[in-house]
Amino acid sequence: MNESGIHYVIGVDAGGTRTRARLAEAATGRVLGEGAGGPGNALTVPPDALVRHLGEALRGALPPGGCPVAAVVGGFAGGGPGGGRERARAALTEALALAGVRGGRVEVLGDADVAFAGGAGAPADGLVLIAGTGAAAARVADRRAVRAADGDGWLLGDAGSGFWLGREALRAVLRALDGRGPSTALAGPVGELCGGLTKEHVVRYAYGVEPVRLAALSPLVVAAARSGDVVSARLLDAAADELAATVRALTPRPGEPLVTTGALLAPGGPLLPRLTARVADLGLVPDPVRDGLAGAVALARRAGGGRTGAEA
Amino acid sequence: MNESGIHYVIGVDAGGTRTRARLAEAATGRVLGEGAGGPGNALTVPPDALVRHLGEALRGALPPGGCPVAAVVGGFAGGGPGGGRERARAALTEALALAGVRGGRVEVLGDADVAFAGGAGAPADGLVLIAGTGAAAARVADRRAVRAADGDGWLLGDAGSGFWLGREALRAVLRALDGRGPSTALAGPVGELCGGLTKEHVVRYAYGVEPVRLAALSPLVVAAARSGDVVSARLLDAAADELAATVRALTPRPGEPLVTTGALLAPGGPLLPRLTARVADLGLVPDPVRDGLAGAVALARRAGGGRTGAEA
Repeated sequence: MNESGIHYVIGVDAGGTRTRARLAEAATGRVLGEGAGGPGNALTVPPDALVRHLGEALRGALPPGGCPVAAVVGGFAGGGPGGGRERARAALTEALALAGVRGGRVEVLGDADVAFAGGAGAPADGLVLIAGTGAAAARVADRRAVRAADGDGWLLGDAGSGFWLGREALRAVLRALDGRGPSTALAGPVGELCGGLTKEHVVRYAYGVEPVRLAALSPLVVAAARSGDVVSARLLDAAADELAATVRALTPRPGEPLVTTGALLAPGGPLLPRLTARVADLGLVPDPVRDGLAGAVALARRAGGGRTGAEA
Repeated sequence: MNESGIHYVIGVDAGGTRTRARLAEAATGRVLGEGAGGPGNALTVPPDALVRHLGEALRGALPPGGCPVAAVVGGFAGGGPGGGRERARAALTEALALAGVRGGRVEVLGDADVAFAGGAGAPADGLVLIAGTGAAAARVADRRAVRAADGDGWLLGDAGSGFWLGREALRAVLRALDGRGPSTALAGPVGELCGGLTKEHVVRYAYGVEPVRLAALSPLVVAAARSGDVVSARLLDAAADELAATVRALTPRPGEPLVTTGALLAPGGPLLPRLTARVADLGLVPDPVRDGLAGAVALARRAGGGRTGAEA
């Protein structure tokens, strides 16, 4: 509870696949409401759609007609400084007004900042690694990402991401089909997905969808590897190698926090054991979090409480 | 000269970057006219543009008002059977009519077929490897490609192509910038091209152009390698490795022809020495040709002469 009587904060986690919002009690962090909407990448989702997806998530989290809040923190994929941060801020401000949110400081951060803030013990300094549709790592100092590695998008980077795995799955099948590579159990599910098991089917499928949608194929690789497919197991190894190399680029200090998230590295994520094995020699132990929502709320509570404290 | 008095044939080479047409004397192959137009990939260039680009090339090659011809052979990137061949045929037929070409059998082939036909001694059987904007190889039997390797496009394949080299150049610079890779002399020219040497500049540049346009960066890699840049030399090695693997997938027979073309493997092409070294153990010696135009004309002369001979 604070002087102005505003008890609530909002955390938003806007990722490449969906946007989530959470309303929480400022004093305790107790969750009061939650909502979800469409993709929220600040660089790739058009402004109108971004406002709409944020609105969907906010309306699910808030009471009808909105409410006053002490602080809002939004973490956006593609929302790094100099990246889509200004676009994200404009969209979030508009969506908050439309949802009836009144007052409160609005802070826009990258997805790495909010994911890190959700780590065990609410760490202020360390490393964060995200591997979902895309892949990126950051060094965090005093609760802000100060240095990034990868996050270069599907065309140039995101090495070890869901997109990367999905694309490599198709490549492996194409290489098996024309004799450049070994046969793989991926051929079955990929052929089913593409409506036929010829190069033409695979190529037509892949170029007919938005590239990042190939991330949807990554579970096929995980399943095939579990069933003993050597090619798929090697792809998972290669993905984990890439992610470990991305962490290594940030010159880790032994024992510092390494918060991980994204579908591949969230709790129970399929690449978590492989990553754990590959960063052990760096003195790091992954601390997986479900998404950036808890961290966004934690940062909003700090922002809201801090302001109130200064005013009190 | 033939019975019907039609002395001319047309060869068309429609590639990812431009389309070329040549009018030649059927009996001797003497070149009577040549023209060039925009990109001619049958799969990726929209039908209207394809007709327009073919028309540009044909008008440059033909006398005003057109002329009667004995045969036309067009080789199209993306024009393989089951691929864009029907689209290519429709576009070529329309462009020929608009250009005033009368009569003559029209044959549409893939770029591999016409490139191969331009090899020394007009071979009928062997291998062809194209590395320009894209990369693809084929086994040719009785003057027709009967089996393909790679040619899977920029998203899934074209390993060792101009696009591939251009994308890897940007990746190498991004990796150097965030510490994942060694520094490279590519940073200078890439920074200039992208309007600044930060990850943001490079990423914004790359996602702002059509992906295949990144092929335009491959000369930067060649130049940097010549100046002693180790990273660039390794990229050229890796490209040649990929191209050799693509050839190897077609189970080469020692001593059979290996016709090569595309900007990287045409006469004097920058990857030619590296490829030559890598296929020597297969008993292959590259036979580089400038493009598919000579081969298209050679096949048109066969088609025209053959028909006339049968009718005589």
